[in-house]
Amino acid sequence: MATQGQVITCKAAVAWEPNKPLVIEDVQVDPPQAGEVRIKILYTALCHTDAYTWGGKDPEGLFPCILGHEAAGIVESVGESVTEVQPGDHVIPCYQAECRECKFCKSGKTNLCGKVRAATGVGIMMNDRKSRFSVNGKPIYHFMGTSTFSQYTVVHDVSVAKIDPKAPLEKVCLLGCGVPTGLGAVWNTAKVEAGSIVAIFGLGTVGLAVAEGAKSAGASRIIGIDIDSNKFDIAKNFGVTEFINPKDHDKPIQQVIVDLTDGGVDYSFECIGNVSIMRSALECCHKGWGTSVIVGVAASGQEISTRPFQLVTGRVWKGTAFGGFKSRSQVPWLVDKYLKKEIKVDEYITHNLNLGEINKAFDLMHERGCLRCVLSTDI
Amino acid sequence: MATQGQVITCKAAVAWEPNKPLVIEDVQVDPPQAGEVRIKILYTALCHTDAYTWGGKDPEGLFPCILGHEAAGIVESVGESVTEVQPGDHVIPCYQAECRECKFCKSGKTNLCGKVRAATGVGIMMNDRKSRFSVNGKPIYHFMGTSTFSQYTVVHDVSVAKIDPKAPLEKVCLLGCGVPTGLGAVWNTAKVEAGSIVAIFGLGTVGLAVAEGAKSAGASRIIGIDIDSNKFDIAKNFGVTEFINPKDHDKPIQQVIVDLTDGGVDYSFECIGNVSIMRSALECCHKGWGTSVIVGVAASGQEISTRPFQLVTGRVWKGTAFGGFKSRSQVPWLVDKYLKKEIKVDEYITHNLNLGEINKAFDLMHERGCLRCVLSTDI
Ligand SMILES: NC(=O)c1ccc[n+]([C@@H]2O[C@H](COP(=O)([O-])OP(=O)(O)OC[C@H]3O[C@@H](n4cnc5c(N)ncnc54)[C@H](O)[C@@H]3O)[C@@H](O)[C@H]2O)c1
Ligand SMILES: NC(=O)c1ccc[n+]([C@@H]2O[C@H](COP(=O)([O-])OP(=O)(O)OC[C@H]3O[C@@H](n4cnc5c(N)ncnc54)[C@H](O)[C@@H]3O)[C@@H](O)[C@H]2O)c1
Ligand SMILES: [Zn+2]
Ligand SMILES: [Zn+2]
Ligand SMILES: [Zn+2]
Ligand SMILES: [Zn+2]
Repeated sequence: MATQGQVITCKAAVAWEPNKPLVIEDVQVDPPQAGEVRIKILYTALCHTDAYTWGGKDPEGLFPCILGHEAAGIVESVGESVTEVQPGDHVIPCYQAECRECKFCKSGKTNLCGKVRAATGVGIMMNDRKSRFSVNGKPIYHFMGTSTFSQYTVVHDVSVAKIDPKAPLEKVCLLGCGVPTGLGAVWNTAKVEAGSIVAIFGLGTVGLAVAEGAKSAGASRIIGIDIDSNKFDIAKNFGVTEFINPKDHDKPIQQVIVDLTDGGVDYSFECIGNVSIMRSALECCHKGWGTSVIVGVAASGQEISTRPFQLVTGRVWKGTAFGGFKSRSQVPWLVDKYLKKEIKVDEYITHNLNLGEINKAFDLMHERGCLRCVLSTDI
Repeated sequence: MATQGQVITCKAAVAWEPNKPLVIEDVQVDPPQAGEVRIKILYTALCHTDAYTWGGKDPEGLFPCILGHEAAGIVESVGESVTEVQPGDHVIPCYQAECRECKFCKSGKTNLCGKVRAATGVGIMMNDRKSRFSVNGKPIYHFMGTSTFSQYTVVHDVSVAKIDPKAPLEKVCLLGCGVPTGLGAVWNTAKVEAGSIVAIFGLGTVGLAVAEGAKSAGASRIIGIDIDSNKFDIAKNFGVTEFINPKDHDKPIQQVIVDLTDGGVDYSFECIGNVSIMRSALECCHKGWGTSVIVGVAASGQEISTRPFQLVTGRVWKGTAFGGFKSRSQVPWLVDKYLKKEIKVDEYITHNLNLGEINKAFDLMHERGCLRCVLSTDI
């Protein structure tokens, strides 16, 4: 390609400061160095982690930065020693890397690769510990190793999943975060068995993907809990069989659920990010075996608590990151499942805008009826 | 037997009030009703749960009562419809029942039988919801469905494990609580694999049994943590390979352990009953897979807490009751393992007294060098 080895100037939404509207800037994107891949991002969605960092709630958030981590695009060029992708490949950037050689990857017990974390955690690239983004010479931090709110981004090669080029990028961009997180929480982390009773707290994209995963695992009852009763109608399409609005009850919600289920649920999932609901989710589990999985991300500094007796009597408390999926190995598999119509994706997309309208997209996240908003980078 | 069907008057240690010395009384023990077994207790040990209830710390503790739950004896007589044991059988009373027919027993997922809990939880027998113990006509509550600080006790048939009569009762009485709890925490609850790094907080009987279980599971490093450095010498015999006294460090103990183990342990066990140590035990686990098991019983009302990020990044928080062992099925198997010298028991017994000296035995629990004190009921 003509751009290979060159600095590319393109449009990106820059978060100059927490809580201030993003600004579409002409950004200089350096060529990929060894082990790096430059991707032309075509579509990106917004997820709560973007809003969380943008809102200044992440004490490790660095500004100015380019947010965004749920996207799809096409490889523009690759740096030295990159072997698994080449220009023209269709890809999904993965904030959860997979190097296949670190202690974590080799453990067979987790998807939390450690290879590039020391760089992605502080908004830079491993090779020279610098950013590949700048505006008029001023460096702009990377975010989550992905920075997809840009027409071009540079990521580590261990953070790129190569997918079937037949997949529509404007849909499968969602397989970069929320949908796999929910499906994987059920399939990989909880390992829900057929016949199980499941409770899902929070029926956003992540909670609905949990419902879909639970349905496909053969759960006998899928109880959805949300303070927004409008969610029930859509939730039915994803497998939720019963709906509870905590506002309709005086009793603690865990007690309501225990009463409804002859002692509690087999599996519960917290998909909100509220520490007091995390406790409810644990305590609505059945004595002896109930397992609760934390999926939501709580505000920094907040803590979960319970009486230890809850665990001594057999409940298990877990959590999940990216649903336990190994990103480079399994995102392509999820794309194939979508192409075979085995998992939903289109149904989570409620809005389509373009990158220039990103501040409106952030506003939409707080509106009822919004699940995922997909932005085209074609401004 | 001559006593069958009769009220037996025998010696028992009655706890009239919390925190007041137990009193050896002449207690009337009623004959067993349908589904009940009367046992002549020969040996009983003391465990912390006895001290906990005696000390008034258990809000559900009922007085006056006969404490004790780690014992062995011989069946004196059985009530109607009792088929699995008969007079003369050697048995271990089990505070954790196993009926093989309730929801819990049939789940295959837990040892927490629900059959008689509604009675044993409130110090009475299921059949007529009354006690079988009295002193001059005044009823005395049962405790944990076992009440072994008595020459005779009455228990539900689902709470009796029949064991090999060749086993020395003055030793295997320990298989009624502490030793199985530690072994099972490793084998059943955590399922420690060969090569694992293990941390054990608290090196009393339970913690040492965890060490023994971990050693037999092939753990590569077994790190013992205790504020009493004298524990290390004895702990070595049970498999502990490294010792840490938190008092020797300024850093939080979880940090000390993470530093020592390149990121944390694979499994940790809290065997103290201290909620702040429960947090340390979770947080010293390796990101991605470390599992922490709560074994200790905390003071009532106390809560555990941590940042949810600890779980989202792959740590698992569990607990165990009686080590997850199914009592009637597996206590006899543990007795056989002891007879084949595959597990230690004698090594946990540091003191031998008789029932008349029970208050001294309670005092001994607070002394260094005391693991288990076994009381003969032969006063
Ligand atoms: N662990 C991971 O890897 C991972 C990945 C992606 C997202 N997340 C987190 O998952 C969470 C959910 O993400 P989402 O995109 O589905 O969010 P969302 O905002 O679309 O959905 C949250 C839902 O919870 C409901 N809710 C809010 N407060 C509630 C309460 N007190 N009781 C009941 N319901 C309540 C809302 O009405 C909404 O329907 C977020 O915290 C996000 O940061 C985690
Ligand atoms: N879950 C169950 O089924 C079950 C069964 C039996 C016992 N238990 C509980 O297990 C716990 C241990 O029982 P045990 O009989 O071994 O008790 P123990 O008192 O003999 O042993 C406790 C050990 O912890 C050490 N310790 C105390 N505070 C400490 C601290 N802050 N840091 C490090 N070490 C500390 C003590 O020095 C002692 O060696 C108790 O809480 C008991 O109630 C639970
Ligand atoms: Zn996300
Ligand atoms: Zn890796
Ligand atoms: Zn005990
Ligand atoms: Zn049962």
